[in-house]
Amino acid sequence: MTADLYEPPVRELLRVGAGRPLDLSAIDPRSTPGLPALSVTGPDRKSWARAEVRRIGDELAEQQEMLHAQAVAGDAAGRRVLLVLQAMDCGGKGGAVKRVAGAMNPLGLQIRAFGPPTEEELGHHFLWRIRRALPDAGQVGVFDRSHYEDVLVVRVESLVPEETWRARYDEINAFEAGLVDEGFVLIKVFLHISYGEQRERLLSRLTDPTKHWKYHPGDVDARTKWPDYQAAYTEALSRCATDAAPWFVVPADRKWYRDWALAHLLREHFADLDLSYPPARFDLRKEHARLLAGDGPKVNGG
Amino acid sequence: MTADLYEPPVRELLRVGAGRPLDLSAIDPRSTPGLPALSVTGPDRKSWARAEVRRIGDELAEQQEMLHAQAVAGDAAGRRVLLVLQAMDCGGKGGAVKRVAGAMNPLGLQIRAFGPPTEEELGHHFLWRIRRALPDAGQVGVFDRSHYEDVLVVRVESLVPEETWRARYDEINAFEAGLVDEGFVLIKVFLHISYGEQRERLLSRLTDPTKHWKYHPGDVDARTKWPDYQAAYTEALSRCATDAAPWFVVPADRKWYRDWALAHLLREHFADLDLSYPPARFDLRKEHARLLAGDGPKVNGG
Repeated sequence: MTADLYEPPVRELLRVGAGRPLDLSAIDPRSTPGLPALSVTGPDRKSWARAEVRRIGDELAEQQEMLHAQAVAGDAAGRRVLLVLQAMDCGGKGGAVKRVAGAMNPLGLQIRAFGPPTEEELGHHFLWRIRRALPDAGQVGVFDRSHYEDVLVVRVESLVPEETWRARYDEINAFEAGLVDEGFVLIKVFLHISYGEQRERLLSRLTDPTKHWKYHPGDVDARTKWPDYQAAYTEALSRCATDAAPWFVVPADRKWYRDWALAHLLREHFADLDLSYPPARFDLRKEHARLLAGDGPKVNGG
Repeated sequence: MTADLYEPPVRELLRVGAGRPLDLSAIDPRSTPGLPALSVTGPDRKSWARAEVRRIGDELAEQQEMLHAQAVAGDAAGRRVLLVLQAMDCGGKGGAVKRVAGAMNPLGLQIRAFGPPTEEELGHHFLWRIRRALPDAGQVGVFDRSHYEDVLVVRVESLVPEETWRARYDEINAFEAGLVDEGFVLIKVFLHISYGEQRERLLSRLTDPTKHWKYHPGDVDARTKWPDYQAAYTEALSRCATDAAPWFVVPADRKWYRDWALAHLLREHFADLDLSYPPARFDLRKEHARLLAGDGPKVNGG
């Protein structure tokens, strides 16, 4: 039931870098790079993409199980997957986690949301809380915000001097290179929404009483600094798009495309790992005989 | 779309205690307590139960979101849910987590599996690693095995002297009473399978190469001590079935009943919390006007 991988791979279409400078304003948040030409349009296109996400979700669940199985068997060599999600408010991180990561077995997921640092966290190096939240071998981790906040909100709000945050690009690159050496597959994704789409989503939070808790007047204050944030994202993504740990920009005004692209990014990275179920480390025939022979205690009508 | 709660509640039918001593051998692992009389039988009954689990899963996801929303709004008063799962090998903890907990948003779940303690963990009190793994306020935690291993495998395998593990019942009760005081809803579930069903499931792990990694010859060694484990479970469940933190025995030979019962247990406990979405803490009209007025920077066609 495995669908073919697309050619060119979705990740090549969304990857930051590849020789040209990043210009976020040139990437249409409503565009759908890599989506195959379909014989359907409109709502049918959305249904098609949603169905593909569910199908790929089943594949991701199997890949995750193999990764976990290899770790249990001692074959994983420290391998694990870490998805880093960044976005402006209302960018859809939560929805993406629910629909894409949610397809995997929660036992194999380690999801961590990073809010403003606590007093304790502020007393440490900015990577301290990140290191403590890294997924274990064999697991799939998801960061809802991350260490990149320390070169984004921290920069825009001038929370530390410029020389401090500016030095962090190199620190982040060294940190991430170390993770990759340890066996991490890093998938760093910026969900790119438009200023207009953010307004629509904020308005819908005001209209729907079940969403009031998600609305914070401070979000609108941050909205007034939109160009500053776009500039901060542009520099962070450019400076930290390395070969070992590239950045991907996913146009995210269309939620169904966002999920479709994210599912493909995960799938393509899993494919690199060439996972399989580990072989038996015991004598199959002998174990079979033991189970059939052992009448054992008669309990529960066994 | 809320289905009615059953009367009597499923949890009353499955609760340990209620005046009579626990006798696991008198509870048929193939029984289906609380399942309503259906006009369907056989495979149709299974399909019906699976569909109900999916429907209740949507409710659980909403309840979880409200719990999280109240924590974000500061209304939760430390409330959180902790599901503790115990079972013999092949008892179906993994499947139950996947199908029932998997219905909730992974961002609101904190799942932790407890294996044999590490060297570091052995250097601490047996509750040390448990305390570190407790869910945060507003979260739903799931323990795949738990502190009960310290009165189960530890007892059967004589890993500590009897006076040590025997003292732990009171320690556990005091610990759990403290959690409930802090706002925890504890749901402790023993998935009860038969000796014969365990054999079938072990055999299927041998037959299916994608399941070899789940098979450990040591599981069959533990199987020879089945009556000792049943006795250890009987005493642990009896001694630690308190009003604040009761134990539930879920007959688990039928996977679809297991998931159905677990979904109902969660649902009935969520109902106690009487959750709702927190009200807006800001001036709705003012925020609406701000969003519509703010033309802001023209970016991305916004």
